[in-house]
Amino acid sequence: MLEAIRIAKKGKGRTKTNPLVGCVLVKNNEIIAKGYHSSYGKKHAEIDALNKTKEQGLTLYVNLEPCCHHGKTPPCVDEIIKRKVKTVFIGMKDPNKEVNGQGLKKLKQAGIKVHQGCLEHESRLLNYSYLTGIKKNRASVTIKVAISLDGKVAACDGTSQWITSKKSRSDGKKMRNRYDAILVGSGTASKDNPVLNRSLRPESWKKILIDRKNKVKESSRMFKNGKIYIWGGAKNKLNKKIKYLEAKNLKNLLELLRKDGVQSVLCEGGKLSSELIKDNLADKIVTYISPKLIGSKGLGFSPAEWKTLSDSRKLSDVGITKIGEDVKVEGYLTNVHRNN
Amino acid sequence: MLEAIRIAKKGKGRTKTNPLVGCVLVKNNEIIAKGYHSSYGKKHAEIDALNKTKEQGLTLYVNLEPCCHHGKTPPCVDEIIKRKVKTVFIGMKDPNKEVNGQGLKKLKQAGIKVHQGCLEHESRLLNYSYLTGIKKNRASVTIKVAISLDGKVAACDGTSQWITSKKSRSDGKKMRNRYDAILVGSGTASKDNPVLNRSLRPESWKKILIDRKNKVKESSRMFKNGKIYIWGGAKNKLNKKIKYLEAKNLKNLLELLRKDGVQSVLCEGGKLSSELIKDNLADKIVTYISPKLIGSKGLGFSPAEWKTLSDSRKLSDVGITKIGEDVKVEGYLTNVHRNN
Repeated sequence: MLEAIRIAKKGKGRTKTNPLVGCVLVKNNEIIAKGYHSSYGKKHAEIDALNKTKEQGLTLYVNLEPCCHHGKTPPCVDEIIKRKVKTVFIGMKDPNKEVNGQGLKKLKQAGIKVHQGCLEHESRLLNYSYLTGIKKNRASVTIKVAISLDGKVAACDGTSQWITSKKSRSDGKKMRNRYDAILVGSGTASKDNPVLNRSLRPESWKKILIDRKNKVKESSRMFKNGKIYIWGGAKNKLNKKIKYLEAKNLKNLLELLRKDGVQSVLCEGGKLSSELIKDNLADKIVTYISPKLIGSKGLGFSPAEWKTLSDSRKLSDVGITKIGEDVKVEGYLTNVHRNN
Repeated sequence: MLEAIRIAKKGKGRTKTNPLVGCVLVKNNEIIAKGYHSSYGKKHAEIDALNKTKEQGLTLYVNLEPCCHHGKTPPCVDEIIKRKVKTVFIGMKDPNKEVNGQGLKKLKQAGIKVHQGCLEHESRLLNYSYLTGIKKNRASVTIKVAISLDGKVAACDGTSQWITSKKSRSDGKKMRNRYDAILVGSGTASKDNPVLNRSLRPESWKKILIDRKNKVKESSRMFKNGKIYIWGGAKNKLNKKIKYLEAKNLKNLLELLRKDGVQSVLCEGGKLSSELIKDNLADKIVTYISPKLIGSKGLGFSPAEWKTLSDSRKLSDVGITKIGEDVKVEGYLTNVHRNN
């Protein structure tokens, strides 16, 4: 199952509103074939794996309950039954109302031994974006932020290039490849005039700009490529790469984005991050901490105005990674992956 | 040499103004004996090791140049020559003006092969407190602080118990055993009324209180045991455990402490830490970071009012350790261990 989860991750940033799924086929304790859902509309993981072997009497490991409905592809359950798979291990039930236990049931009815809940927590963590989509009906949000040891994102005079090391920044840039879109506010977009590109599949990369006061210029570098969403001031109406969204608030913006097939959004620091955390819309946070002191007058990473220690927000499922002399601390702020 | 450095650490918190020294004796690539300087006035590491064997033709590894002067004990150099040691590997020269290359010279003159600078950086780091004493004529200062991911040491209402996990706090408490004394301001001493004890050798533990406005009560729990130094308001003048210091400023206080045999001082957070960092008197900093967000109104860990990013203070020789879900980031702020 760990291997299924590992290969499922290859689909990150490509499956849109679909989940990340990996599948491993085993016979006599040996891996016979593996498959994963590579991108939206493509073969499901189970079919990808089953297509690679003609063996019989297989045990199948998959991190998500196989589907039983006709979506972009035929139901996986039918193929699993047809191929006479003996045992199926499932990471978690699929809360999608078109599946939601029906896949499991059909497999059992066909006489297949089914074990549900194998590495369930890890399976749920893997698909926290998908779960956010199903349960909250909005795109999931990950905050990325570079901070000093004393919790500052910029010095007193606004200088912030660079707080963290080259190695950390490069690690941070690679994150973009694992998301559907990047979300920035007008401050970030105008101040540094960043391109906001990513290295893999730049053509399918989406950039979302919140520019309620129409401050960002049409000549901004971020408009040069990718698909653009703007909430706020109209730019060049003739530019077909730009799509305008009329949102009521941040939550509604994330709902509209999901409707348009944007499931996972990365927000790289700035005031917007604080707003998202305050509004309970930040699902995951990734911090790069540099071992330096910026001082009391620096700009704090200040998510909200909680009053007492018990109000503080603890990250769950924390990961800690050394990156040279910096340290990356990441974890989850919402708990959509925790309850059923 | 790594082993010599490792065992030298056993003397932490006991050698006062003496350095930490470990010694390993090797013959035919095998360790024959080991020794270390266990506490002030006791045998030096070289003698401790040589006393444990009668073997001839030894190679000796020691992290600090052997002494050649009569102090509390006779010169180690004489014993090394007498025992006909063949080769001596030295981590670093001893900058103490009574040694400072003379030990090296005497060994060479006696026909012993001497290699200086083996794991020199590690040897210098080990003795950063001793080096601070020799070069700056003051006690060295280590700051310990527990902070949230957003750089806060307390919530808006002052609550701070506890920011970090039990595991981190226990790790932090053990630090006291490796220092000569603890340094606190009147705020810390009166607010939480802490005992400020340590688990090992509590009888030789020293507590230094800065109480310039005579705010701390005589009934405070910190006065109950250990030896007390006070800079500021007089308490019970009859209490012989209390010693009063008349310092001109923080730097002078640290000078007076060293004169009294206090070489390494631990300061546990609070305003005093900020002051020490600002005044360039903090040599090392140890932070325990908890993966939680306390919010913008929390009390920041705000060492000084630097203006721009290039003014920020970078820690050197950074160590990163996971402690459960917390992370310990430690490093050096002054660079006494870097230059000769």
